[in-house]
Amino acid sequence: MGGMKLYGMPMSTNTARVIGVLNEKNVEYEFILVNLGKGEHKLESFLAINPFGQIPAFEDGDLKLFESRAITKYIAYKYMSEGTDLLHMGDLNEGATVDLWVEVEAQQYNPQISVIVYECLIKKLFGDVTDETKVEACCAKVAPILDVYEDRLKTCKYLAGEKFSLADLNHCAYTEYLMRTPKADLITSRPHVLAWWKDISSRPAWVKTAAGMQFPHIA
Amino acid sequence: MGGMKLYGMPMSTNTARVIGVLNEKNVEYEFILVNLGKGEHKLESFLAINPFGQIPAFEDGDLKLFESRAITKYIAYKYMSEGTDLLHMGDLNEGATVDLWVEVEAQQYNPQISVIVYECLIKKLFGDVTDETKVEACCAKVAPILDVYEDRLKTCKYLAGEKFSLADLNHCAYTEYLMRTPKADLITSRPHVLAWWKDISSRPAWVKTAAGMQFPHIA
Repeated sequence: MGGMKLYGMPMSTNTARVIGVLNEKNVEYEFILVNLGKGEHKLESFLAINPFGQIPAFEDGDLKLFESRAITKYIAYKYMSEGTDLLHMGDLNEGATVDLWVEVEAQQYNPQISVIVYECLIKKLFGDVTDETKVEACCAKVAPILDVYEDRLKTCKYLAGEKFSLADLNHCAYTEYLMRTPKADLITSRPHVLAWWKDISSRPAWVKTAAGMQFPHIA
Repeated sequence: MGGMKLYGMPMSTNTARVIGVLNEKNVEYEFILVNLGKGEHKLESFLAINPFGQIPAFEDGDLKLFESRAITKYIAYKYMSEGTDLLHMGDLNEGATVDLWVEVEAQQYNPQISVIVYECLIKKLFGDVTDETKVEACCAKVAPILDVYEDRLKTCKYLAGEKFSLADLNHCAYTEYLMRTPKADLITSRPHVLAWWKDISSRPAWVKTAAGMQFPHIA
């Protein structure tokens, strides 16, 4: 049994979200590569950890987890006093505001950005053609959301206030890839969002995480 | 300032998700009706609480929250020792398992079920026609997810284990409406999922919540 085990692929956004937290906490864990190309996520042994057959999955002794945001929250909570405090639960209102912006990432930002990244970047891995109509629809939906981010980041340095938190970190994986698409201007056209992205993506823990987010098949 | 204020409409699923927790906790709060038909969610005064202009929104003294799942978590955490314990944070693994299934609702269940409910039920409010192709696509996507639920609920009474939790409760609002659509068989065709639904929807706190989930314009 022993320590923490993370199952996934470093280039997968949802896996990278968890690696980002592990790097901020600087805690030991074992990484187990799950090769999606070989269908390893549909093997009995993997389904015993995540019955939905998706990466990442995670074990810590007897505990089996999946869903990247549940895993990041678990690690941030278990190691609250090690490395960077990501939850700010010492104050009820601060902790609730972190949770709020964690939810905004999950419900507002990610549903649009993930489609843009998939269409503009991931599809090319498989030689597929980007659905430009879909991309434009997502850009139109996410633009007013990012306008709210811009207003928010005018009044505070990070999404949940003056302190870096899990809410910022959970945005990193998809934004890392968004910046490699022709739609990076969603970020670069908004000065406070851009300054925020430059700040959070230059943290040593994220630089280390992003170094593993390479597609083998494209330049 | 004072106590808790919930802004929304009782018939809105995302508002009902919060009312469900308030009823389980049996705590006092003020309900402020936001009439979407009159565009009250786009007024300056409302945007000052939720800049995304969506219901529900929530205040507790100086704290302003939105995103229903962040609000339910806040109430469940603040009133941990009153009414029903919904988080089970006394045990690290139990608490993490609640978080896991809260995420499964948000990321796997809700994205499909919300579209089915919208297409089959909400659209009719406005005299619109159900997009059957879209409904079938969602049913096809959610069927294997509900098969995992069925397996899970064979081994334990509730999603996070033997205890009712926020993970179950967060499912109630959309499932309440799903059961009023022709796609209720997604639930009724799976015996353990159906038994779970009968159990959680018959809790007095939910019966009280569901009583407010009435569309005024259709029978």
